[in-house]
Amino acid sequence: MNGKMYVGLVLGSVVATRKSEELVGKKLLIVQQVNPKDGNLGAFEVAVDSVGAGTGEHVLVTKGQPAMYVFGTTPSCIDSAIVGIVDSMEVS
Amino acid sequence: MNGKMYVGLVLGSVVATRKSEELVGKKLLIVQQVNPKDGNLGAFEVAVDSVGAGTGEHVLVTKGQPAMYVFGTTPSCIDSAIVGIVDSMEVS
Amino acid sequence: MNGKMYVGLVLGSVVATRKSEELVGKKLLIVQQVNPKDGNLGAFEVAVDSVGAGTGEHVLVTKGQPAMYVFGTTPSCIDSAIVGIVDSMEVS
Amino acid sequence: MNGKMYVGLVLGSVVATRKSEELVGKKLLIVQQVNPKDGNLGAFEVAVDSVGAGTGEHVLVTKGQPAMYVFGTTPSCIDSAIVGIVDSMEVS
Amino acid sequence: MNGKMYVGLVLGSVVATRKSEELVGKKLLIVQQVNPKDGNLGAFEVAVDSVGAGTGEHVLVTKGQPAMYVFGTTPSCIDSAIVGIVDSMEVS
Repeated sequence: MNGKMYVGLVLGSVVATRKSEELVGKKLLIVQQVNPKDGNLGAFEVAVDSVGAGTGEHVLVTKGQPAMYVFGTTPSCIDSAIVGIVDSMEVS
Repeated sequence: MNGKMYVGLVLGSVVATRKSEELVGKKLLIVQQVNPKDGNLGAFEVAVDSVGAGTGEHVLVTKGQPAMYVFGTTPSCIDSAIVGIVDSMEVS
Repeated sequence: MNGKMYVGLVLGSVVATRKSEELVGKKLLIVQQVNPKDGNLGAFEVAVDSVGAGTGEHVLVTKGQPAMYVFGTTPSCIDSAIVGIVDSMEVS
Repeated sequence: MNGKMYVGLVLGSVVATRKSEELVGKKLLIVQQVNPKDGNLGAFEVAVDSVGAGTGEHVLVTKGQPAMYVFGTTPSCIDSAIVGIVDSMEVS
Repeated sequence: MNGKMYVGLVLGSVVATRKSEELVGKKLLIVQQVNPKDGNLGAFEVAVDSVGAGTGEHVLVTKGQPAMYVFGTTPSCIDSAIVGIVDSMEVS
């Protein structure tokens, strides 16, 4: 479960008052990886929401430099971002 | 199995209606890493297809910033991309 | 616990006299990942502080290229940075 | 064995006819990480050769963005590259 | 021990005659991660020295794109670099 673009379940959120400017006004969600074969849950991380996701939803998470530019073209400190709400998965 | 450029098996796909603009019209495939020695399957991730891959095919997956530019020269939120269909592997 | 943007606990600090110029005057803190579900501690790393964090505080850590630009717009050798102090986490 | 610049053993190669343009004419080798202390083998990945390496040789592998620019200054989809042939290792 | 900026112990070196131009004249050291709590050793990797480190010293290692620019402003194939000599660590 070391995938870098993955389907995750939103578990909750993080509140941080003192933080980097680029994070002000952004929702910090706690996401846990989902195994698409059996639905088992894996590793956790904090991801910045860009699509209006909420607790209990399955989301598509991207990481690293691709996540850094989700909110604009200048480099940001954002390293994990939610870029989609997953409607369904089909595994055969 | 932490490799970042690897041979994977396409297991299925993910449907996400609400998503980042850069993902609109792209196929989101679920890929599982393949051990080239014994064919055993490893970690999962979601990869954006760039070569017309489908379920059941072995593919070459690239990750991180190299994946970000697979569809153009502006930074995208894409962190894993399928960049080849594997015809054969030779391990000695 | 392979997440790249995560909540960590500051355990202590590292002193390095001989170091890269970009690190001069910066606080190097040892951070351990926190499992948001049960509070268990995971992997360690060294992160450069940007928000005035101290030992015993829970912090938000970012990594990779996003961390590299936390102190300016020229590429730096910084690969992990503390970008927020966590006030609370809510997991349901 | 999560190292990103490591010594590996070339095990074999991958043939992919349908692939990203940047991979055309490049050798795709299967490399397994080598533990420098005891010679044990670890994780696999596919790396693009830049130094004329072959099966059975020990090589130095680089990953991520550093690998992306091994064949030129425009971003490529290459995420792992062989950048040296290892003559010897000395561990004390 | 998946940290990307970490304290490591220099174990030895790698000799590679045939290698990428950017590596010519650089010292390639084998570094093993150190657990700051108990001093236990973890994963290995090869890191390019930028501060004059030697076998037996504790060093600060950076990885990925931050490492790529340690020796200049043009992209290099360097994915792990030693950027500090650790004098002491304080963990409470």
